[in-house]
Order: sequence, then structure tokens, then C-alpha cells
Amino acid sequence: MPSLVPSNRDAETRTARVVTLAARPKGFPQRSDFSIVERPLAQETHGDVVVETLWLSLDPYQRGRMNDAESYDEPLRIGDPMPGGIVGRVVESRAEGFVPGDLVEGLLTWSDLHRVPSSLLRKLDAETADPVTHELGLRGIPGLSAWFGLTEIGRPRPGDTVVVSAAAGGVGQIVGQIARLAGCRTVGIVGSPAKAAYITEELGYDAAIDYRREDVAARVKALCPDGVDVYFDNVGGAVSDAVFRSLVSRARVIVCGRMSQNNRETPDIGPRDYGFLTTREVHMEGFLLRRFAPGFGPARERLAALHRSGAMSYREDVATGLDRAPEAFIGLLRGDYLGKVLVDVAADRESR
Amino acid sequence: MPSLVPSNRDAETRTARVVTLAARPKGFPQRSDFSIVERPLAQETHGDVVVETLWLSLDPYQRGRMNDAESYDEPLRIGDPMPGGIVGRVVESRAEGFVPGDLVEGLLTWSDLHRVPSSLLRKLDAETADPVTHELGLRGIPGLSAWFGLTEIGRPRPGDTVVVSAAAGGVGQIVGQIARLAGCRTVGIVGSPAKAAYITEELGYDAAIDYRREDVAARVKALCPDGVDVYFDNVGGAVSDAVFRSLVSRARVIVCGRMSQNNRETPDIGPRDYGFLTTREVHMEGFLLRRFAPGFGPARERLAALHRSGAMSYREDVATGLDRAPEAFIGLLRGDYLGKVLVDVAADRESR
Repeated sequence: MPSLVPSNRDAETRTARVVTLAARPKGFPQRSDFSIVERPLAQETHGDVVVETLWLSLDPYQRGRMNDAESYDEPLRIGDPMPGGIVGRVVESRAEGFVPGDLVEGLLTWSDLHRVPSSLLRKLDAETADPVTHELGLRGIPGLSAWFGLTEIGRPRPGDTVVVSAAAGGVGQIVGQIARLAGCRTVGIVGSPAKAAYITEELGYDAAIDYRREDVAARVKALCPDGVDVYFDNVGGAVSDAVFRSLVSRARVIVCGRMSQNNRETPDIGPRDYGFLTTREVHMEGFLLRRFAPGFGPARERLAALHRSGAMSYREDVATGLDRAPEAFIGLLRGDYLGKVLVDVAADRESR
Repeated sequence: MPSLVPSNRDAETRTARVVTLAARPKGFPQRSDFSIVERPLAQETHGDVVVETLWLSLDPYQRGRMNDAESYDEPLRIGDPMPGGIVGRVVESRAEGFVPGDLVEGLLTWSDLHRVPSSLLRKLDAETADPVTHELGLRGIPGLSAWFGLTEIGRPRPGDTVVVSAAAGGVGQIVGQIARLAGCRTVGIVGSPAKAAYITEELGYDAAIDYRREDVAARVKALCPDGVDVYFDNVGGAVSDAVFRSLVSRARVIVCGRMSQNNRETPDIGPRDYGFLTTREVHMEGFLLRRFAPGFGPARERLAALHRSGAMSYREDVATGLDRAPEAFIGLLRGDYLGKVLVDVAADRESR
């Protein structure tokens, strides 16, 4: 595909290749809900930096942004670039502290080239032995969400039973391992036998439940005979209702995501009796990561150190080429991938 | 009614008049779900105390105990006495520290006479100027639930908007006033124009919403243009869903009760997308009062002092005679009463 599109990039008329929202998805997104367009870069201004994308992060939260619905940020308008975290290389700089060649990370767009204020960018340590892709996963939004959600809201104690939904995903793969290292028993909920094998054999989860093939409530009950102390919820809906039944007194529920809800056209109708919150004194809390921003640096280091030492495993699944991003994103929502999903955008550049 | 039943109380063959669970209610309780029976008192044992009931407390939580369903305690069996808080007078004591004439409070049963271990009783200060009935309300479970739920979980700050459901009830009447004294704007949700007038004119709520006659979501939105910081929830269900729409970022939801749910035969089916917990980082927590037991003494004193000083109003609604307890309880669930609902059990004794 990329080779069919004439490349007209040069110093004078720089354009970026951008994936935009073409239409609001009706339920599950279709390829036609995305457009891929060439757009001129923004005009130069003082303090800006031009960045070439190396890696693009695909994450379930991006689905929510496609709807015209309340979220933690304005909904996208039709024609807007899709939002996403990227790792890139500075190719031009009018900003202090940034020079061409610098590696940077930022929450930008599904685009191969960006001109942005440097304040949107975080400079990466070129000397680190960690793969730069970890900045979008283990050391990025998924890893930090796992770390702060579990440790600050979940407050796991040795011997606790921790259940994680979407346990083989970008966040879930890290949550289960932090819980294991904290001395907890871990049970992960996943959507395929391959994922069940992955989380038990590679991540060290004590058990897996396949929500597409098993009765979640019955399995949670059987696997957690003493109840569930902490539930790290990435999905919401019926799966979560099933876990709620086994929560112990004073259990903590971390509401991190709601993958089961994002593709719905209509409200999810189900039992809405929050009685268990009272009778079992449950603490249920959602969070946005920025709340924990002051602690990002040390948490990134902790996670990277755990990985370097071999205590923590970490898996990435990579799609090649920006033009593949829409299909890869649809695949992510369908549950086709294991671990953190990335798009290798540099591959486009190398193939030209 | 009491006069039709022969009284055979004497020192040798003491019996108690007891309201028991005759049948599990199908939905809304009926009079026939209760029996009133005479039962011999338990055998004497060391450390026990015989207590004559003066006042019985009727509370919505008692409805939950009638179901054969999960709760914070074992469900009642058919034939069991209904549970309830009482204030009474010691008439016989084999326990150190208790003598006939002592006033006591305890979580016992709907009965006019009890023989119980003294450990179940709290001795009341005979010298206090406060009415003893306050031990079942302002200084009892409702007042302490209001105090600890609001201050410890709700954490209201001056200028916050606090919404309270069942605002004219035993708990709600106190919550709104604590919030007002803490510098908050208060909006109460009630079920009748009389209750709306009560909470705004007598309790000092800034506004009232009548959920039976008004569109709760629209009214909350209009009355809370800056959103809801704290929601003290006594009801659950559709009313709460309507309030959730207006929660601000980092709002606190105290799940104290679920009156809308207790009379249901089937699960309450409604929207179950907890998305707002994430996008608005909401903290939602249920609690049982015993968690805060170490602080009961000082909290009771604080509430009583606020009332004595005139800063806090407090209303009781009284039914006369133990035999009236079932009808009064049904009336409480129907919303017939204002404030804390009590049964004057001593009236039976006086009328004999």
C-alpha cells in the first residue's frame, strides 16, 4: 500500500501521513471508519519540534475517543487525527533542549510526522539498555496504569487473591506480575486458550479463566475459594458482574477500563444493584493516570528494573506500517493480539 | 389489640411479646409476613440482664434481613424475631455493672422483654439532658452512619455540592445538616412535597428534588450547575443513575443503603456501564458502621452537641405499641414517615 502513494516529502513542502476518523463507528469499528490522508505539517513556530514517528501505540482507550460521548477529553471530530502515544526521533528543532536525533515520546497522533510544541514531548535516555518500545508499554501508559492502579487503589497484601480482566493485554500482563511479586495469588480472565496459556505459563498467573468458553462466576468461585480481595477491571459488563459475586469484605475494585462497553451502540443493560458495595464494604474507584504524575519517574524505573532482573516478563505484538494501523486496531479490539500492541511506523520509511 | 392477649408475666413464668418473621416477603412486605407471639424468656445464666423495651427503632436495613439473600449478617429464618435497636430499662441483672433501673441501648429484637448477655448492651448516661430516643437516631446507627459515611468517605470541603437520597429519612436528615455545617451546598432527593418542604425549611437543605414527580437527572443538572462533588446514596437504582450523570471529576459516592432494591423479587436491570468511574475518577465505597467503632463515642458527643446548640434539627416519627411495629415498618418502606421512625413500646405497658 505505501508504495502506491506518491511521497512528496522534502524540506519545503513537508507533509505527514495521518490516520483520521472518517466516520463514527456504529458498534464495532470498520476499516471505513478511518481515512489515511497526506496533510501539510503545521507552520513553524518558536519552540516547536519536528518528530518522525518510529513506533505508534494502539490502546483500547482510543476506541472511546471515537464516540461522540463523554470521556476524560473532548471527543474527536470527524476528520481529526486518531490520538496515540508515539516514540519518535527529532528531525528539526526550534526548542531549547531538543536537537535532531533525540529520541522522544509523547501522546500525539497516528501520524508518521509531527510538528509540535516541545512541551508535549518527553526526551528519552539514549543510553538506556531498554528497548525504546517499552516507553509505550512497560514504562508507558499501560505499565504506569498497572502500577498505580494496583498499588495505590488496589493495595494488595501478601496472600490476597487478585483477579485481573483482559489479563493478557497491555495493562493486564503487567498487573498480574506486580500482584504476584507482591505475594498475591493471581487469576486472569482472558478470551482464548492461547491467552490462558500465555498468562499462566509466561506471566506466572496462578490460573486463567476463558470468559468466552467458561462460566466466569462459577470459575471465579472455584478458583478463589476464599474470595477475591482485589479486582483490577479492564472490561466492565457481564464479566465484571460475575467477579463481583466473589468479592470479599473490604475488597478493592480498580476500574481501569471498560473494553466490553466501548463498541456498544446502546447502554449495557444488566443488574445494577450495588448492594455488594454496602454489605461487603467494597471500595470501587476509577482513575486517570495523570493523578499520579509526580510518581511517574520512580515507577518507570521500578518497572524497568523488574524487567531487567528477569522478575517480570513483557510481550509486544507488532503490526508493520502506519497504513496497517486501522486493521491492527480493529484486531486489538477483537482480541487478536497478545500483550502490548504497537505499529512499527519506521518500517514505512525503511521500505521507501 | 394488646388487651385481648392475657398477660401472664410474673417472676416465675416470664414471657416476652415478640414480632417474628412469619414468611419471606414477596416484594413489598405484607402484614401477614409478620407474626406476633408470646415466648418464654431464655433461661437465666450468669452475666445476663433482663431488659424491658421502652423504644424500638425501625430502619430500612431490617427489610434486607428478611430476604434469604447475602447480607452482612446471616439472613433471618422463618420464626426468628425481627432484629432491631432498642432502648430499654434493666429490670433484673446477674451482670456486673448493671442494676435494675439502668437505661440501656442495644441491637436486639422487636420484643418487649429481653434476657441477654450484658455484653450486648450499652449503658446510657441517666444524667444526660438528651432524650433517650436519640440513642436510636441522632446518637445511634443513623447518626453515626451519616457522620462517618459523610466525613470519612465523602470528605466534603467548603463549597462542595452534596446530594443526598432519602434526604428526609433517619440518616438523610442528619447527612444534609452535617454537609451544610461543613460549608457545602446541599440538595436532597425525597418522595413527597411534604418531605421537600421539611428538608428545605427545617433542615436547611438548599434545594429538594421530588423523585416521584420530577425528572431527577434534569433537576440535578439544573440545581448543581457545577456538578455533584459528593453523593450520599441511601437508595440505589434509577435515582442514583440519574445523580451519577452529574458527578464531577474525583467525586465521592457513599453507598450507605439501597432502599430501592430491598423489595425487589428480581434483579434491578438497568445501565451497568461504570464508565463514569474511570472518566471522572470517581471513588464509590460502601461501608458497615462497625468499621468506625473506635470513634463512636466522640462522634455521638459531637452530634448531640450540635443538636443541643441548635445548629442541627432532628425529627422523630413515632408509632405507638409493639403490635403496630409491622404496619409502621411497612409505612416506613412506603415513605409515609418523616425523620427517624420509632415504636413506643412502653406505651403498651402503661396501657395495661
